[in-house]
Amino acid sequence: MISFVEILEYTGTFAFAISGIRYASLQKFDWFGAYVVGLVTAIGGGTLRDLLLNSSPFWMTEPSYLICTAIALLFAILFGEKINHLSNTFMIFDTLGLGFFVVVGIEKTLDAGFPMWTAVVMGAATGAFGGVIRDVLLNQEPLIFRKEIYAMACVIGGIAYWLGIEFQLNAAIIQVLSATTVILTRLLAVRYHIGLPVLKGYNEGNNNSDETFHSK
Amino acid sequence: MISFVEILEYTGTFAFAISGIRYASLQKFDWFGAYVVGLVTAIGGGTLRDLLLNSSPFWMTEPSYLICTAIALLFAILFGEKINHLSNTFMIFDTLGLGFFVVVGIEKTLDAGFPMWTAVVMGAATGAFGGVIRDVLLNQEPLIFRKEIYAMACVIGGIAYWLGIEFQLNAAIIQVLSATTVILTRLLAVRYHIGLPVLKGYNEGNNNSDETFHSK
Amino acid sequence: MISFVEILEYTGTFAFAISGIRYASLQKFDWFGAYVVGLVTAIGGGTLRDLLLNSSPFWMTEPSYLICTAIALLFAILFGEKINHLSNTFMIFDTLGLGFFVVVGIEKTLDAGFPMWTAVVMGAATGAFGGVIRDVLLNQEPLIFRKEIYAMACVIGGIAYWLGIEFQLNAAIIQVLSATTVILTRLLAVRYHIGLPVLKGYNEGNNNSDETFHSK
Repeated sequence: MISFVEILEYTGTFAFAISGIRYASLQKFDWFGAYVVGLVTAIGGGTLRDLLLNSSPFWMTEPSYLICTAIALLFAILFGEKINHLSNTFMIFDTLGLGFFVVVGIEKTLDAGFPMWTAVVMGAATGAFGGVIRDVLLNQEPLIFRKEIYAMACVIGGIAYWLGIEFQLNAAIIQVLSATTVILTRLLAVRYHIGLPVLKGYNEGNNNSDETFHSK
Repeated sequence: MISFVEILEYTGTFAFAISGIRYASLQKFDWFGAYVVGLVTAIGGGTLRDLLLNSSPFWMTEPSYLICTAIALLFAILFGEKINHLSNTFMIFDTLGLGFFVVVGIEKTLDAGFPMWTAVVMGAATGAFGGVIRDVLLNQEPLIFRKEIYAMACVIGGIAYWLGIEFQLNAAIIQVLSATTVILTRLLAVRYHIGLPVLKGYNEGNNNSDETFHSK
Repeated sequence: MISFVEILEYTGTFAFAISGIRYASLQKFDWFGAYVVGLVTAIGGGTLRDLLLNSSPFWMTEPSYLICTAIALLFAILFGEKINHLSNTFMIFDTLGLGFFVVVGIEKTLDAGFPMWTAVVMGAATGAFGGVIRDVLLNQEPLIFRKEIYAMACVIGGIAYWLGIEFQLNAAIIQVLSATTVILTRLLAVRYHIGLPVLKGYNEGNNNSDETFHSK
C-alpha cells in the first residue's frame, strides 16, 4: 500500500515536473527537452543535497521519479493549453511538495551528522535548487531571486524545525510544523504579493562606475 | 601501444573539445576561455557521471584529456576559419565519440551496481551533458533541447544495450551494437532532419495567462 | 585568537561575497537573491573542489562563511551606492583572497593524493569557479572568459607552486611564492589591461556556415 508520505512525494514530484515542462514548452522545446527540464526541476534539489552529503542520489535506485515525470509529460502533451486553467491547482501541489521536500532535506542532513544550521541551508537547497537549474537550462534569470518569497519560505520552515527541536516537540509534530510553515509562508506571500526588498544603490545610467565595476 | 578503444576515446575527446572551442570563438572568448569551454564540453558529461556514481572523476588521474583539449585549441588557433570546411568531418568524429562515451557511461554505472535503467540515463548524461554545460557557459539555450535528435540517440543506444543483455549476447557485441545504434540514429536524424515534436499548447500572445503562470 | 591565515580567508570570502552581491544588485535581485549569489560566489569554487575530491564541502561544518556573506550583505544594504567608491579596495581584497584560495585548493588536492598537474587545475577551479557560477546565475556570459587575466593568473600561481616543489623550497615559502604570483599577475593584468588573445577565425556575417555549424 502507498503511504501518506509517498502520496506527498509523488504529488510534489509531479507538480515540480509540470512546472519545468510548462516553462520548457513556452520556449518551444521538443518532448525530450521538456522531459529533461521537468526531471531536473523535480530531482535537481535533492540531487544537489545528496552530492553535498556525499551519498548516492535518491533517484538512482528508485524509478518512480522518472516515471512521475513521464506521466507529467504525457499529461502536458494530452491536455496542452487547458493546463493553464489549472495554474492555481498546480501552485497548491507545488507548495505542498515544497513543504515536504524541505523537511526531507533537513532530516537527511541531520541523519548525516551535520549541525542544525547546515540542515536549514540544505532544506532550502532541496526545495529551491531544482527551480534554479530549470531557469539556468532555460537561459533565464532564476525567478526565485526576484519574485515572491520562495526559497525564503524554505528557510523559515527550517527555522520552525529548529525551534521544534529546541522545545523538544514530538518528531512527527516537528515535521508537520515545519512543512506547514513553509506552505503557509509561501501561500501568504503569493496571495498578498509579499516580497523581500530589492537591493538598491547601484544605479544604472552611471556607465562610468559601471564600467569600473565590470572590469573586475 | 595505443589500443583501438583509446583511439576512439581520444578522437571523441578531440571532437567534443573542438565543438566547445568553435562555439567559444563565435562569442569572441579569449584563448583561455576557449580552452575551458572546450575542456568542459569534452569532460563535463563524464564528470557528472562520476560525481553521481560517487567515484573520482576520470580526468583527475589521467592527463590525456587536458592534453587532447590543448591540441584541439592549438589546431583551432592555427587553422582558424579553415576549420569550418571540416564541419562534416568533425560531426562524424563527434558522433563516433558520442557512441563510445554512451557505452562507457553505461558500463561504469553497471559496474557500480546500479540497475540497467539507471545505466541508460547515465549513458545519455555522459554523452550529452558536456554540450549542455557548454551552452550554459556560453549563455545560450541548450541546443540539445531543440535540435535534431542528440540525447535521444544516446537513450536509444542505451535501450539497444539493454536488449543485448536481455538476449544474452556476447559483451563485445553488445558494446558494438549499442554504440552503432547511437551513431546511426544520430546520423540519420541529421541527414533527414528528424526531430522530436515540439511541445505545444502554451501560446505566446496571451500575456495574461503567461503572467499568471510566471508568478509561480 | 584569529590567525593570519584566517584573516586572509575571511577577507577573501568577504570580498568574493561583495562581488556577487554587487552584480546581483545591478540586476535588482531581492535581499535573499543577493545573499545567495554572494554566497555562491564566495563558496562555489571550494565546493566544486571538495565535490571533485570526494570530500565534504568545507562550509558545511563551519558557519563562518555564511556569517561572512551575511555581513557583506548588511554592508551592501547599509552603504549602498557608496560602495562603488571602494571598487579599487574591493579589487585588492578580492585579489588577495584569490591568491589565498588558489594555494588552499592546490594543497587540498595534493593532500588527497592527486598529482601536481591536477592540483594546478583544482587551484584555478577553486579561485575562479565561484565567479563562473555567479555569472551563470545572473544569466550573463562568464566574465573570466573574456576579460583581463583572472583564471590564468591562478594557473600561473599554480605553476609557481610546482616550480617551488621542484626546487625543494620550504613549504611556507612555496605558499607565499604561489599566492604572490597569483596576486601580482592579476594586478599587473588589470593595471596594464593585459589580456589573452581572442580566438579568431569564425566570423559572423557568414550565416550560411554559421547555420551549418550550429546544426551540430
